[in-house]
Amino acid sequence: MMRKLGLELKTLIKKETDDKMRAFAEKVFASETKDENVRDEISMFDVDEDCPIMHEEMAHHLHTSDNAEKRQSLNTASPYLHSKKRSRTIAVPVASVASKSVAAPPHDYKFPLLFLNVTIKSLMSASQVTMDDFELSCKGLYRALTIREKYMRLAYQRFPRTSSQYLRDIEGETFKPEDQVQPGEEKRRPFTSPPKNGEDPFDTKDLPKNLGYVARMKDGLIYVYNDAAAADKHQPKDLPCPDYDTFIDDMNFLIALIAQGPTKTYTHRRLKFLMSKFNVHEMLNEMEEMRELKMNPHRDFYNCRKVDTHIHAAACMNQKHLLRFIKKSYRVDSERVVHKLKGKEVTMKELFDSLNLHPYDLTVDSLDVHAGRQTFQRFDKFNAKYNPVGASELRDLYMKTENHINGEYFATIIKEVASDLEDAKYQYAEPRLSIYGCNPNEWTKLSGWFVKHRVYSPNFKWMIQIPRIYDIFRGRDFVPHFGRMLENIFLPVFQATIDPQSNPELSIFLKHVTGFDSVDDESKHSGHMFSTKSPKPEEWDIVKNPSYTYYIYYMYANIAVLNQLRKQRGMNTFMFRPHCGEAGAVTHLLAAFMTADNISHGLNLKKSPVLQYLYFLTQIPIAMSPLSNNSLFLEYAKNPLLEFHKKGLVVSLSTDDPMQFHYTKEPLMEEYAIAAQVFKLSTCDMCEISRNSVIQSSLSDEEKVHFLGHDYLKEGPEGNDIRKTNVAQIRMAYRFETLCYELNLIKEGLKAE
Amino acid sequence: MMRKLGLELKTLIKKETDDKMRAFAEKVFASETKDENVRDEISMFDVDEDCPIMHEEMAHHLHTSDNAEKRQSLNTASPYLHSKKRSRTIAVPVASVASKSVAAPPHDYKFPLLFLNVTIKSLMSASQVTMDDFELSCKGLYRALTIREKYMRLAYQRFPRTSSQYLRDIEGETFKPEDQVQPGEEKRRPFTSPPKNGEDPFDTKDLPKNLGYVARMKDGLIYVYNDAAAADKHQPKDLPCPDYDTFIDDMNFLIALIAQGPTKTYTHRRLKFLMSKFNVHEMLNEMEEMRELKMNPHRDFYNCRKVDTHIHAAACMNQKHLLRFIKKSYRVDSERVVHKLKGKEVTMKELFDSLNLHPYDLTVDSLDVHAGRQTFQRFDKFNAKYNPVGASELRDLYMKTENHINGEYFATIIKEVASDLEDAKYQYAEPRLSIYGCNPNEWTKLSGWFVKHRVYSPNFKWMIQIPRIYDIFRGRDFVPHFGRMLENIFLPVFQATIDPQSNPELSIFLKHVTGFDSVDDESKHSGHMFSTKSPKPEEWDIVKNPSYTYYIYYMYANIAVLNQLRKQRGMNTFMFRPHCGEAGAVTHLLAAFMTADNISHGLNLKKSPVLQYLYFLTQIPIAMSPLSNNSLFLEYAKNPLLEFHKKGLVVSLSTDDPMQFHYTKEPLMEEYAIAAQVFKLSTCDMCEISRNSVIQSSLSDEEKVHFLGHDYLKEGPEGNDIRKTNVAQIRMAYRFETLCYELNLIKEGLKAE
Repeated sequence: MMRKLGLELKTLIKKETDDKMRAFAEKVFASETKDENVRDEISMFDVDEDCPIMHEEMAHHLHTSDNAEKRQSLNTASPYLHSKKRSRTIAVPVASVASKSVAAPPHDYKFPLLFLNVTIKSLMSASQVTMDDFELSCKGLYRALTIREKYMRLAYQRFPRTSSQYLRDIEGETFKPEDQVQPGEEKRRPFTSPPKNGEDPFDTKDLPKNLGYVARMKDGLIYVYNDAAAADKHQPKDLPCPDYDTFIDDMNFLIALIAQGPTKTYTHRRLKFLMSKFNVHEMLNEMEEMRELKMNPHRDFYNCRKVDTHIHAAACMNQKHLLRFIKKSYRVDSERVVHKLKGKEVTMKELFDSLNLHPYDLTVDSLDVHAGRQTFQRFDKFNAKYNPVGASELRDLYMKTENHINGEYFATIIKEVASDLEDAKYQYAEPRLSIYGCNPNEWTKLSGWFVKHRVYSPNFKWMIQIPRIYDIFRGRDFVPHFGRMLENIFLPVFQATIDPQSNPELSIFLKHVTGFDSVDDESKHSGHMFSTKSPKPEEWDIVKNPSYTYYIYYMYANIAVLNQLRKQRGMNTFMFRPHCGEAGAVTHLLAAFMTADNISHGLNLKKSPVLQYLYFLTQIPIAMSPLSNNSLFLEYAKNPLLEFHKKGLVVSLSTDDPMQFHYTKEPLMEEYAIAAQVFKLSTCDMCEISRNSVIQSSLSDEEKVHFLGHDYLKEGPEGNDIRKTNVAQIRMAYRFETLCYELNLIKEGLKAE
Repeated sequence: MMRKLGLELKTLIKKETDDKMRAFAEKVFASETKDENVRDEISMFDVDEDCPIMHEEMAHHLHTSDNAEKRQSLNTASPYLHSKKRSRTIAVPVASVASKSVAAPPHDYKFPLLFLNVTIKSLMSASQVTMDDFELSCKGLYRALTIREKYMRLAYQRFPRTSSQYLRDIEGETFKPEDQVQPGEEKRRPFTSPPKNGEDPFDTKDLPKNLGYVARMKDGLIYVYNDAAAADKHQPKDLPCPDYDTFIDDMNFLIALIAQGPTKTYTHRRLKFLMSKFNVHEMLNEMEEMRELKMNPHRDFYNCRKVDTHIHAAACMNQKHLLRFIKKSYRVDSERVVHKLKGKEVTMKELFDSLNLHPYDLTVDSLDVHAGRQTFQRFDKFNAKYNPVGASELRDLYMKTENHINGEYFATIIKEVASDLEDAKYQYAEPRLSIYGCNPNEWTKLSGWFVKHRVYSPNFKWMIQIPRIYDIFRGRDFVPHFGRMLENIFLPVFQATIDPQSNPELSIFLKHVTGFDSVDDESKHSGHMFSTKSPKPEEWDIVKNPSYTYYIYYMYANIAVLNQLRKQRGMNTFMFRPHCGEAGAVTHLLAAFMTADNISHGLNLKKSPVLQYLYFLTQIPIAMSPLSNNSLFLEYAKNPLLEFHKKGLVVSLSTDDPMQFHYTKEPLMEEYAIAAQVFKLSTCDMCEISRNSVIQSSLSDEEKVHFLGHDYLKEGPEGNDIRKTNVAQIRMAYRFETLCYELNLIKEGLKAE
């Protein structure tokens, strides 16, 4: 049955992509490669827009694809088998990887018509980059990949198996599955599984015993010691942490790399090629992809799982929802004491009276929490929008976990949002709650709120966001130095990990926390450059804020150590998923490349072809929020989402702040709908983005298996279960081939050397 | 209280628009008038982009506004009073109209800071159009206005009172309110009022008596006669109908006008001026408008009434809704006989079996009713999307009023959509049902379906759409000539109007019908030009389709006569609201200018500055559907909606076909949300568009009073009740002033002569 279907598909492809079609595609492609927009987007780097390597390479492609197809019509075997027999061409490793998956595909699929192989000779002669420059670029990119691989492994974060395989191949070593940074599902379950039937997510009876260790901060890093005596002598347990000097060396290497002329030229050309290649893929295979999806029963865009990968809990309801909630709370609770005003307890009625407001008259206009034209390029104005009616009292009352009513309203609103998601069934979200680092009690209070109000939903995975506002706290003398802030953030988590029973509520809460986010306005300049000469956190006692990179390094380093300790204890580990590249310097994206499992925003990848290409090679997921950007940093039509998606970067769609940006009752669907309309996304595009969102998310292994298929950890078409994801296998094969092809080029570059 | 508030507002304005702000606005304005996009949009007319009339005029404005404001800070009286005292300037009539409304505004409001007056001398010296050209343009525009006024009056359609006042003024006559084409609410209720409590909308007991008249078609027009004898002698009753030759004369005049060089230049410049003026208004008054809205209790964008002014009943559900409905119907009705297949009755199960489908497996992908990249510029492919799974059998079963189950499913889906709107409370829609003109029984069948299934909802106002597909019917020999098609469309309605009791179901249905639409692919060329030499409809027996204008003329002429007859009987009348300007020739828009109360689409107004300016002067409402256009004719970002809105054309937002274009459960909200995001509309913009949609709609007078305020028929700020519409009075005043200013220019042009 499956085979017959495959044959049918092939015949159809043959029919569809006749000579006329191909001639047309070639013509369009020729103009495509000269596309003005593509040029503009990275024009700051002064690269020849007419790139001979690409023209030649693509001509070769089309030619080969042509031949391959002709042969294919005579023989139904995979074109990859043929490629091995061809003289003068080097069969790229992808062929073997891919043909393996051809041998036993999870479902029936057809490889795209773009047939990928290339001769080193033609590459060199055509590229008009000298052999030296090509080697130089490949060497640099190779080292960059190994850097990320190292830091991901250290912190139990992810690195693509395919990229690791190529790295080992380059090193002349054999890839061992056990080496891989993204281990198979049998080995590791980094996130807490959803409670089984009848199990209470707040149950504390199975909390592990106290290990009796001691945790202390030194030079901004928490160390774990066997006991107080060892701590006094600084004889920490063997939990590898990133070496400070090596990290800075690595960072400096990457800074040099992204500014290096030949590498900029090379990556710019590769990215342009990736763009053009996708456009050709689309022209040739769009109808095929659609046909696959139409034949896929019972699954469409609506019942594909999607995760809102980036959303702030304090703005997770839309403006109308908040308005309704305020009105309802007033109807029910107007005589309740809800606030302390200048030391005096006041009822809700008195509070509203003091603001000269009656909730009945309140509208979304007077509520004034929606971003508008006024907030564009004004993050400060945007932050003020968090205050309903401009009154911080109302923010305190409705959107805080700590207040006179113990955050009851905030918990209720969040549970209402969760209940909407549960009803919608296919939507999940990863809301962020804040820890500021002002006070060591914050964790206890936050987890107390979480447990008291039972703020749990199967459709939510929690994240902790740390605002980068040391300067404000120091200015008000809340903390003596930056080290204390780090200590307040991390020490309680270490302690709860060492002795869970000492703080059961926190321990339960941590089970449901999946990662850390770093948040604030990236466009603010710190004026500080992270280097070996930077003061240690405990010495950082000036009012000035440290740089983004400084924050990122210390967060990452502590999370890495924490994850090792938690992994030893069989506990869930944490992902580092900072806001990055929304604005500010490209070095932010460099820091995240070294430390983050995945990021939010990533807009500024537009500005660095080297980093953009590295994010592609390492398939770092990027949660993009074009509606948020549209109100803050970048007009919708200029958003690079479509471009990134076409080039093969792993992008997902997220809402950021529904309260400020969205109009409808289903903010995530609104986000998808607008992207689909403005960017003219196909169903396959939308389902691929949905699938990316599940991959990026911190849903548990069980959930991912349920939503994506049993083999979801495998890369390429093997890992895709179209019955669950509604992503065409042709698309998956195209993505996988394309990644392998680019990785192989690096290998070839190093081999040539 | 009101006065005090007004004073406060003025002080606030004073504070906000200080010198710095004004200097900034002037600077931005200077660049604004050179805006490339504005130029591009009408570049086909080869007009100087650097338009001295405008620069000079605006400089004058800003200067005057400056002075006016200074004086204002010393004196709180209206600046209009001052303007009358100024020497050398001509106080434009708007001043008196407007200052009257200042005297007794329905609510407190402040006029915008753009103070509008101009000297003829400065106009002439600055315009660099010769006095002759200026007069020529004004003369032409004046005549065009009188043409529309005449045809609107004849058919009981609307023409703005303000424009009529200026026309009488030009003619040296006194404007009499009883002359106005849009009569006051006490005089005329063109649409059926909603049933009072307990009243049955299907009640037939009060149907009027038979008048005994005879109706017959002659030369494509239905005439009404006292009796058969009079009919045989062609002695019709005195129901004025448009004179054929005069109509063609008028049309030819307008065709010449829109091609006339000086008028093109003049209107182009006026439109550019209107655009720049709005941008300045926005910069100066945006915060003021927002302040008004914030002070407006209990009303915001969400609870403003909005009407989906253009939606097809057969596609009024979204794709997911249709899918769910099909699945549900199969679960309940699989053994029911629902269809006749090749003469044999089949159950639903058998029907699906014959299509090789099981509804359980069905997805939105296989349903395939959504427009995508494939439908762009392909109206034919788009039309095929009306067939679920590409099967016309399913279209018959689910989306037709006539089929084996008497349209039961279609009625049920429509009632589900209506019930969603009723739940949403603030949304209304005007769905179109088809009459084809193939058969005189169509009306009886359609009204039978309507009454049998009680397809009534307070949130729906019904319209009849007539597809322009005579060529197909003639080709299949369904009709002998075009006249028969017209007869099939209109004669039954005349007969039911003369003798309502002869067809009670149709009479009831007609009570709920509010207008006629003309639909089809406008981009198809007919190759026919409407002129005095055109064959009469009864002589039009070739297979070729007549032109758009020919269709429009005969629809309009019959509706005009029908409306007179119905008005005499105290029955509701019909609006003519064709699809127009979605594609094809600009003459379509010219025909609609002469005949239509309002139109859908209007995109091609982009192509004719003269028509665009005339649509502005006569405030013809335009139901725009940018999401539909995005899938069919024009990319979203290029949609002229924002431009039209800024210039002061009356635009509303509509969905067209939610089944094909929308993703979410609330298609109209999706339409608004996307427009708001992509065009960065302010709340005031969105509420103004919502208000426009109610104005454009055929909601009854009672409903409009309820939704817009008691004085909604008055023009300008007087007619606005901010408590109901949430549109700032500043905005209303700006719009009114701007319209009066442009009308006054025409008056001045004619006076100069």
